[in-house]
Amino acid sequence: MSQIGVIMGSDSDYKIMEEALKILHQFEVPFEVIISSPQRTLKRTVDWVKGFEAQGGKLIIAAAGLAAHLPGVVAGATILPVIGVPINSGALEGIDALYSIVQMPPGIPVATVGIGAARNAALLAVQILMSQDSALSIKVKDYRTQMLQDIEAKDEALQKRLSEEN
Amino acid sequence: MSQIGVIMGSDSDYKIMEEALKILHQFEVPFEVIISSPQRTLKRTVDWVKGFEAQGGKLIIAAAGLAAHLPGVVAGATILPVIGVPINSGALEGIDALYSIVQMPPGIPVATVGIGAARNAALLAVQILMSQDSALSIKVKDYRTQMLQDIEAKDEALQKRLSEEN
Amino acid sequence: MSQIGVIMGSDSDYKIMEEALKILHQFEVPFEVIISSPQRTLKRTVDWVKGFEAQGGKLIIAAAGLAAHLPGVVAGATILPVIGVPINSGALEGIDALYSIVQMPPGIPVATVGIGAARNAALLAVQILMSQDSALSIKVKDYRTQMLQDIEAKDEALQKRLSEEN
Amino acid sequence: MSQIGVIMGSDSDYKIMEEALKILHQFEVPFEVIISSPQRTLKRTVDWVKGFEAQGGKLIIAAAGLAAHLPGVVAGATILPVIGVPINSGALEGIDALYSIVQMPPGIPVATVGIGAARNAALLAVQILMSQDSALSIKVKDYRTQMLQDIEAKDEALQKRLSEEN
Amino acid sequence: MSQIGVIMGSDSDYKIMEEALKILHQFEVPFEVIISSPQRTLKRTVDWVKGFEAQGGKLIIAAAGLAAHLPGVVAGATILPVIGVPINSGALEGIDALYSIVQMPPGIPVATVGIGAARNAALLAVQILMSQDSALSIKVKDYRTQMLQDIEAKDEALQKRLSEEN
Amino acid sequence: MSQIGVIMGSDSDYKIMEEALKILHQFEVPFEVIISSPQRTLKRTVDWVKGFEAQGGKLIIAAAGLAAHLPGVVAGATILPVIGVPINSGALEGIDALYSIVQMPPGIPVATVGIGAARNAALLAVQILMSQDSALSIKVKDYRTQMLQDIEAKDEALQKRLSEEN
Amino acid sequence: MSQIGVIMGSDSDYKIMEEALKILHQFEVPFEVIISSPQRTLKRTVDWVKGFEAQGGKLIIAAAGLAAHLPGVVAGATILPVIGVPINSGALEGIDALYSIVQMPPGIPVATVGIGAARNAALLAVQILMSQDSALSIKVKDYRTQMLQDIEAKDEALQKRLSEEN
Amino acid sequence: MSQIGVIMGSDSDYKIMEEALKILHQFEVPFEVIISSPQRTLKRTVDWVKGFEAQGGKLIIAAAGLAAHLPGVVAGATILPVIGVPINSGALEGIDALYSIVQMPPGIPVATVGIGAARNAALLAVQILMSQDSALSIKVKDYRTQMLQDIEAKDEALQKRLSEEN
Repeated sequence: MSQIGVIMGSDSDYKIMEEALKILHQFEVPFEVIISSPQRTLKRTVDWVKGFEAQGGKLIIAAAGLAAHLPGVVAGATILPVIGVPINSGALEGIDALYSIVQMPPGIPVATVGIGAARNAALLAVQILMSQDSALSIKVKDYRTQMLQDIEAKDEALQKRLSEEN
Repeated sequence: MSQIGVIMGSDSDYKIMEEALKILHQFEVPFEVIISSPQRTLKRTVDWVKGFEAQGGKLIIAAAGLAAHLPGVVAGATILPVIGVPINSGALEGIDALYSIVQMPPGIPVATVGIGAARNAALLAVQILMSQDSALSIKVKDYRTQMLQDIEAKDEALQKRLSEEN
Repeated sequence: MSQIGVIMGSDSDYKIMEEALKILHQFEVPFEVIISSPQRTLKRTVDWVKGFEAQGGKLIIAAAGLAAHLPGVVAGATILPVIGVPINSGALEGIDALYSIVQMPPGIPVATVGIGAARNAALLAVQILMSQDSALSIKVKDYRTQMLQDIEAKDEALQKRLSEEN
Repeated sequence: MSQIGVIMGSDSDYKIMEEALKILHQFEVPFEVIISSPQRTLKRTVDWVKGFEAQGGKLIIAAAGLAAHLPGVVAGATILPVIGVPINSGALEGIDALYSIVQMPPGIPVATVGIGAARNAALLAVQILMSQDSALSIKVKDYRTQMLQDIEAKDEALQKRLSEEN
Repeated sequence: MSQIGVIMGSDSDYKIMEEALKILHQFEVPFEVIISSPQRTLKRTVDWVKGFEAQGGKLIIAAAGLAAHLPGVVAGATILPVIGVPINSGALEGIDALYSIVQMPPGIPVATVGIGAARNAALLAVQILMSQDSALSIKVKDYRTQMLQDIEAKDEALQKRLSEEN
Repeated sequence: MSQIGVIMGSDSDYKIMEEALKILHQFEVPFEVIISSPQRTLKRTVDWVKGFEAQGGKLIIAAAGLAAHLPGVVAGATILPVIGVPINSGALEGIDALYSIVQMPPGIPVATVGIGAARNAALLAVQILMSQDSALSIKVKDYRTQMLQDIEAKDEALQKRLSEEN
Repeated sequence: MSQIGVIMGSDSDYKIMEEALKILHQFEVPFEVIISSPQRTLKRTVDWVKGFEAQGGKLIIAAAGLAAHLPGVVAGATILPVIGVPINSGALEGIDALYSIVQMPPGIPVATVGIGAARNAALLAVQILMSQDSALSIKVKDYRTQMLQDIEAKDEALQKRLSEEN
Repeated sequence: MSQIGVIMGSDSDYKIMEEALKILHQFEVPFEVIISSPQRTLKRTVDWVKGFEAQGGKLIIAAAGLAAHLPGVVAGATILPVIGVPINSGALEGIDALYSIVQMPPGIPVATVGIGAARNAALLAVQILMSQDSALSIKVKDYRTQMLQDIEAKDEALQKRLSEEN
């Protein structure tokens, strides 16, 4: 049973969103993925959202570029929390998608992450599920520890390189 | 029977859109107005759009502010031409609404006018209906002539004022 | 007899606008194309616009980059509906063209589509002509059905790929 | 025991964030509020965050204007989900705060809502807590129903007004 | 005989452009003023431009807001130098007008001044005429000396105030 | 004796400004070029400006990128007309230079052209010199005629290509 | 003997910069103030800068609006550290000034603070002088302690108010 | 003993900041470098800052991209002057980092330089240290003289090239 649904407006968003799926794999959170559009395939989008909620899904990640209506329309069709990922596509380089996702009208929030920030979307999803699943908390703490160690390792490598240069 | 449907995302948009309604009155084009939201009341929005198209409506004007999804969602739910009016509301002063309306993905166009440009939305609607209704063409030409005369009158008033000042 | 006139400010816009011409071919709408500039060749531009209207043209698509005056000047020279396509050229990446086209003064609207959105301009043109030509309506519905099937096919391909990866 | 912690960078943010507190009251979610700054009172901020997490807090809403570091610093100090609210203060009218909150580096997400969108921050918080508390789900559904009825009531008022004008 | 023609797209621009007229009065440069639009009254605009050039006019100042096509269209209709003044009107606060004026395509330049910078437009016009009129050079030098003295006087007033405060 | 002085803030601007020099060559207007900076070599810059004005120079074209102070500082050091060319360099892609040049304070205008618009800067210079030199007027008219013929030739080529494709 | 020189481009900047002077008073750092412009009164500006450096001044704070060249020109005329304060004046609301100050070319830095951030400019100046004056360090620490206490007092007031409301 | 500490949020910032280190080498100012993050490794960041201040460090240069909190958090943790360098990374090309660094709230200033302006950050650091170290002043003057000579040499090369072309 999927806990997280990942929906994207176009298959060209997949190369960005792949990083989110990797995180969900790594944290062993069951998920499903769908390509659907709030303009070109509105009914299909809403049907999937309602089905996902009905079968016990916990949270939806929605990614879209340009006039990115997908996260907002999904958020209007479910009471599950929705995380929006603005995708950089076209001349406005993602600003259009950011504004189209984050500036939701009062009543229907979308939890927006940075432009192209697929990894952060997945981590936020895990942090939200975490409160029902203490095993996840431990994994999040491990992930943070790993980040700390990565920074320390990179710093060490830099110190070594700098001392060798002098 | 309404030829033009005017839909707005919030009743606070009415004070801007009133100018569009005045133009439609002036050109004697039958229209109807509805407040509905693509997030808060999606089904109601789509039902109205489909009903309007079914009963012979010709064109829809959709106005919204912030992350303005209404015009795009309406455009996805009908094959009628949709004119989008970005409304200036909130800190981004209408840029958010402009980008959310004009940057539609390929396949579902929205005919976007300027921020708050309710009058131009109605005039564009009239020009689109005009090709089926030669009486409307004459009214559009008259309206243009009137604009020319208005500019000439304003110019005359300015010339008079300037010559009096000297 | 052309129903749609496509005018562009520079021959460098052609590589973008070619996608619009393909759509018009596909929908079998007769059209003509012209390169002309509202600053460098104003009289030629206006003469073409007036001629196109006089010989029964129905709608004009105008594309331009930078300080994109072409759509607005064309809209002032005809009562036909004018669709404007902002072209991304130069350092401002199409924002200059978008603002120069969409922010028209009251009285002379331009139906603006997204930056570089040639395909949407042509589809919007077809939807506008559609109300006088029921055969076109059927083609628009077919095009939408095709888009739906394309998304379903892409989704299916993704599902297959994801299930193979696991 | 507070489930939600609301932290703001300055007491001038309170007049915006008050709307979030009203929502939390309305949904009967226990919360606490603190004013603290990630630059002026970093230790105090981190101590409160860690204490809030230790005593069983579930989620933090962080609001800040200008170079709004508060949500990101809070998110780095806890594994609880953090919702960020950009506040419009100063010449850049909230764009500075929006970019400072939403563009978090990989690893530490902040769930960002619109500029000044205190109400949506609180609703998002409720939707996140909801998965552990089915009573909350019912309240969220009721809230949505109420929004639908509000729109219908406003629409009815508008229809009445329009029919009276004619 | 007017040496400078001042054209503006709307009578609402007059309150800004009045400051330019004051400068031209002060420098005793003969000028004329006209309100005309490149979209609503294109022929009238071009006729005036061509007439002004034919009767020995030397330079045109053109002011417009929104999608400000006036300066560019005027520049295309004459070989006289054209100074463009972007006017702040509407939601985009003059950025739309600035981009619409300054980003002219190659071949037809417009000498653009700041948003609302009517005074600078007039001073630039005087500096351009100056090369044919040595009396004007002396007046420009006097104007600059006056500016220097104004700054010195304001500085003196400030020093006095500060020393009184201590 | 140079009539036009071309000053640029860095030798990296030369590749852009070369197009201006070609135009000046083509119109046979004597000019000189200098690289100097208003911050790194202020005295040298001002000395050159004052020398150029003293020896009978007529107009200065100043190009700079980033926080582009050169045109404004030059304009403050001379009463000759100054044309400013914003250069696209660095992350802000010329917006920084545009704002730094066009938004001059009252009293000291700079005639600003588009970002990277070296050709237009030179054409504007020629149009300004033209009023003292009727031979130049003829060349400007010839240049415009040439532009018209170029557009017609490009249009003809396009028509040929389109008719061959069908 | 002044340690800090405060220069502003216009007397209208004084109402913003007054807050900087209050901080310098409070920290008992001797300073002087001057109004001068890098365009209108360049020589006077440079003379003051060179004089200030010669007589032992330690640091300059320069404030300007619009195309804010003052900080950069001052920085080019001295090797003292220069702090730049962008002032919000005109339609671009300080973005023009920010870009004109912060985006300095390589070789001549300006230490830029936020738009209108006069207080921070003065505090930064004090922190820079501090390394030669240990008494100042103590005052800076006291100032920080005071800020901490202010936040705690505001927080306490808020807690009291919230508990009274319940 | 390091006088200057250079801290960066990610090792990917090193390729930009390397230019700062070269300047510090050239001016023979002892420095140290560290990679640390205000979100991922907050305690480590603050510990380093406090240690650096305690052992007699004079000034910190902090570089970060995206929602660049590092300079502000460092500035809150020390009373040493902090220079912030916005790094261009991601879709917003450094504007996000610029706003996140320069728009600090009142009380905690960051001396901000241009986007990617590592060299200027180092030069500003040297100018600040200079007041305690007269040998540094001489080096700064030499550096400026060298810049002047570089510009003269580039100008000479250009003059030679231009005269050869004619």
